[in-house]
Amino acid sequence: MTTLFNDPARFMEDQLAGFLDLYSDRLVGVDGGVVSASAPGSEQVSVVVGGGSGHYPAFAGLVGPGFAAGAVVGNIFTSPSANWAANVARAASQGRGVVFTYGNYAGDNMNFGLAQQRLAAEGIDARLVVVTDDIASADDPAKRRGIAGDFTVFKVLGAAAAQGLDLDAVEEAGNRANDATRTLGVAFSGCTMPGEATPLFEVPDGHLGLGLGIHGEPGIKDIPLMSADELAQLLVDRVLAEAPEGAGRRVAPVLNGLGDTKYEELFLLWGRVSRLLAERGYEVVQPEVGELVTSLDMGGCSLTLMWLDPDLERWWTADAYTPAFRRVGAAVPARAAAADLVRTTAAAAPLVEASATGVDLAASVRRALDSVQSLLEENSAELGRIDAVAGDGDHGRGMVRGISAAAAAGRSVPDQAGPRAVLRAAGRAWADDAGGTSGILWGAALEAAGNELDDTAERYTARDAVAAVRAFRDSITGLGKAEVGDKTLIDALAPFAATLESAVDDGEALPAAWSAAAAVATAAAEATASLRPALGRARPLAEKSVGTPDAGATSLSLIITALATHVR
Amino acid sequence: MTTLFNDPARFMEDQLAGFLDLYSDRLVGVDGGVVSASAPGSEQVSVVVGGGSGHYPAFAGLVGPGFAAGAVVGNIFTSPSANWAANVARAASQGRGVVFTYGNYAGDNMNFGLAQQRLAAEGIDARLVVVTDDIASADDPAKRRGIAGDFTVFKVLGAAAAQGLDLDAVEEAGNRANDATRTLGVAFSGCTMPGEATPLFEVPDGHLGLGLGIHGEPGIKDIPLMSADELAQLLVDRVLAEAPEGAGRRVAPVLNGLGDTKYEELFLLWGRVSRLLAERGYEVVQPEVGELVTSLDMGGCSLTLMWLDPDLERWWTADAYTPAFRRVGAAVPARAAAADLVRTTAAAAPLVEASATGVDLAASVRRALDSVQSLLEENSAELGRIDAVAGDGDHGRGMVRGISAAAAAGRSVPDQAGPRAVLRAAGRAWADDAGGTSGILWGAALEAAGNELDDTAERYTARDAVAAVRAFRDSITGLGKAEVGDKTLIDALAPFAATLESAVDDGEALPAAWSAAAAVATAAAEATASLRPALGRARPLAEKSVGTPDAGATSLSLIITALATHVR
Repeated sequence: MTTLFNDPARFMEDQLAGFLDLYSDRLVGVDGGVVSASAPGSEQVSVVVGGGSGHYPAFAGLVGPGFAAGAVVGNIFTSPSANWAANVARAASQGRGVVFTYGNYAGDNMNFGLAQQRLAAEGIDARLVVVTDDIASADDPAKRRGIAGDFTVFKVLGAAAAQGLDLDAVEEAGNRANDATRTLGVAFSGCTMPGEATPLFEVPDGHLGLGLGIHGEPGIKDIPLMSADELAQLLVDRVLAEAPEGAGRRVAPVLNGLGDTKYEELFLLWGRVSRLLAERGYEVVQPEVGELVTSLDMGGCSLTLMWLDPDLERWWTADAYTPAFRRVGAAVPARAAAADLVRTTAAAAPLVEASATGVDLAASVRRALDSVQSLLEENSAELGRIDAVAGDGDHGRGMVRGISAAAAAGRSVPDQAGPRAVLRAAGRAWADDAGGTSGILWGAALEAAGNELDDTAERYTARDAVAAVRAFRDSITGLGKAEVGDKTLIDALAPFAATLESAVDDGEALPAAWSAAAAVATAAAEATASLRPALGRARPLAEKSVGTPDAGATSLSLIITALATHVR
Repeated sequence: MTTLFNDPARFMEDQLAGFLDLYSDRLVGVDGGVVSASAPGSEQVSVVVGGGSGHYPAFAGLVGPGFAAGAVVGNIFTSPSANWAANVARAASQGRGVVFTYGNYAGDNMNFGLAQQRLAAEGIDARLVVVTDDIASADDPAKRRGIAGDFTVFKVLGAAAAQGLDLDAVEEAGNRANDATRTLGVAFSGCTMPGEATPLFEVPDGHLGLGLGIHGEPGIKDIPLMSADELAQLLVDRVLAEAPEGAGRRVAPVLNGLGDTKYEELFLLWGRVSRLLAERGYEVVQPEVGELVTSLDMGGCSLTLMWLDPDLERWWTADAYTPAFRRVGAAVPARAAAADLVRTTAAAAPLVEASATGVDLAASVRRALDSVQSLLEENSAELGRIDAVAGDGDHGRGMVRGISAAAAAGRSVPDQAGPRAVLRAAGRAWADDAGGTSGILWGAALEAAGNELDDTAERYTARDAVAAVRAFRDSITGLGKAEVGDKTLIDALAPFAATLESAVDDGEALPAAWSAAAAVATAAAEATASLRPALGRARPLAEKSVGTPDAGATSLSLIITALATHVR
């Protein structure tokens, strides 16, 4: 969704004004676009990139030393006029000629072509380098659209110009880059024009559009959605199948996000793309992963490969400094030897050989952890939903992560260990793997409970259970500082611990005492839950620091109830 | 929507692996996060940033010279564990102490606090600098959450450490930066966790959430959606109202996008924020506009101001080089004098004084342009919809832009001008303002039609209309190369021109001949339209280069029909 605008019809002009204000130290606005404010004395061929807007950082974000000398900025997804293209070229020109470079679209071809004619009449030699990287758009390479391959071609042109080559040589470098560049993209969701309520296209649920466009065109074909690994395979396979004739094994990859697809997702996909390329014998050179040629808020990504020769590699890796793309080789830190990176971890506690009863109780603790794991997995989505009312919705996920690590850690403790060793390992694993507020609270509390159980004891009594529960509670109140009434898990934990203790004091057997206390905890958790909608958004979120998310009380009462079957 | 993942529960690990692969030339992964691979010899205080993931470029994207020495990477929206924090600190430590810095959340406070204790036991002095910039989250500054102000505080810490200051001084710099930093944000839409089908919250239609969180928390309060200018005013007013006591007039602004809100939107908003700050007497220093602290694919933005003193300004503007943030002052081009930027435009054609009949026809042409403008404005959305089937959905918008410019240009031509001058001005304005494929086709065609009309003629005949229509058609076929049957506006234009010509040849009066030809054009346009769904997505989009978008035939037949009332 595009949300920020005044008059939608003036979106382009308004965003350009803000952009120019932001980079007024290095860019200058001219009629029809932007030029670099380089001081005279560095005369070179002027590479002028362009096309419609809505693709940031393409195209205005790529103006600067080592990259474009100017950008023609059309309306959203619309070729700029010949008049604008000629204006920007005149302002960017340093007397050594101009290269216009843009994707292969009808409007751009006509407008830049007309600008070329007009400039020729004024004595400015302008050349056209047309990008045709999209393998999905046509079989005939000359008829293909330009999509994210714009980036590799423009980069090479900018570097060749910065090297001081003449107009013929810069034009040739650009065409060589285009001949060596192939892209395939996929769309997950369409983009929405400023002022419109619905996207330009939609991808059916559970599908992706193969062969994306960057102007709100849908994919060429809808295919079922797939995992990131499968998508990496598809992109790598199809792009490699289009390798230019005689191409080598060194490639410059661009994994491009279209707008809504986030950096973390692109990194995840890159991990697999990188492995696949290595498996096929390719060596990647300075891969770029990020938003480079976007399409407003469209969801999707594309993989571009430029097959390198020594010249293309030099131009690809050359420094550049623009608003959106900055590479200064000298600024990359020299790398320390891996051995210099100290990685100490705390020493593990020595294993105490447990009594037979201790081994038995440890086994029981392991089984209890396993059943709590099943319980939390079943309830994860619901716990997340409850948490999202006043928190960040991660409670279920965090609890599952923690208990999974705890149960696994419990199983990994040697068979001759006792309950303290199992609970300590489980608690540490919970805190380490789940992290977060609940991770440290639950982890430390499990460890505290375990510390009350002597691994070498010959028998365990209801008193031991009471002591463990008390230690569990004290750990949580000590760390989290919450009190009864703060709408945290303490609301359920405190009455549970109190009821258990007094029932055991009254001489009840542990199973009965536990069940009675569990009933009290459930009622308390429900009472807290009933307050939740009222808490809702009015609750200042910094107050989370007084305790765990509200969903904690529900988690705790579920767990206590489930544990009743394990209490003997 | 988060679309790219394998196992959602391993999203964090998978994305981190890809990130580390990508930046393996300068970063090293350790248990729990990432450290800079700086070679020894540059010993300094180690600034370790951290928190949950899902905020890229915060936090791992900020590791590098001049910024953080390491980042602790928790699960999505979840504090990393104390164990992980301690591990990263050990690996990042260069013997001069560690500053942990993070936003004010319960889990982070507990985990980093525990890590601090563990490190102290090992002889590593670690300090905590907690970010509390979110003015919406609490009245008490100490209880506020940390949101995009993370960026200014971390930047200052990194620069102070790079300057070689000792641990006390670096810690003090960070706390001073936090004391000087205020943020207010707004949410437009919620983010979706990997593997989930629905966002963590939704903002009601026509509203925005004031006081956003960066972990899927909804805004503190929903308020009606507003224009970008109004939003700029709201953000500036409220952030300035929270100015620290005794603060000066130099500020470092960060206009941060949460993920789904695009760079162009942020630039647009920045334009207004910048003007408002200047009006209030503030001087901005190296503003940053972009995605700096995100929340997966959440829609929204925030404005951060850090009030500067001379030290803070030096640290804020210092160079840094990380995966996501690169500032190398020496790389900014020296600025040329504005006068060196040539801006020539073509000389205007001299005005020809028209005959009385010419003046009369010119007025009629102006009226016709005005009514075509109304017609296209009424049909703009529908034309966009038709275009979106096989194109980029911009046809209606482009036509309105073009005709609006054309009609305005027609009105601006002096009253004594004739039809050629009006049509030439209109055509050039159409092409220049609309750009794109249809801009140049329609603009050049109008100009060509005008060239058939002699401004000084004493009378105009039906033959003149035929000649103008023929020139219009020839201009379009000449530029666009489309033929009848290519599903372009030629499908309607060619039979229209032919019918008009033969009807006039047959001696019909112009109005009747025009109406007959218009009926033929409408039928042809409808026939083309009926083929549109079949064309749909199967049509290779590079074929757009054979002509105009399909919607052009509909536009043309509408216009022809409307013009019938102007034909005399």
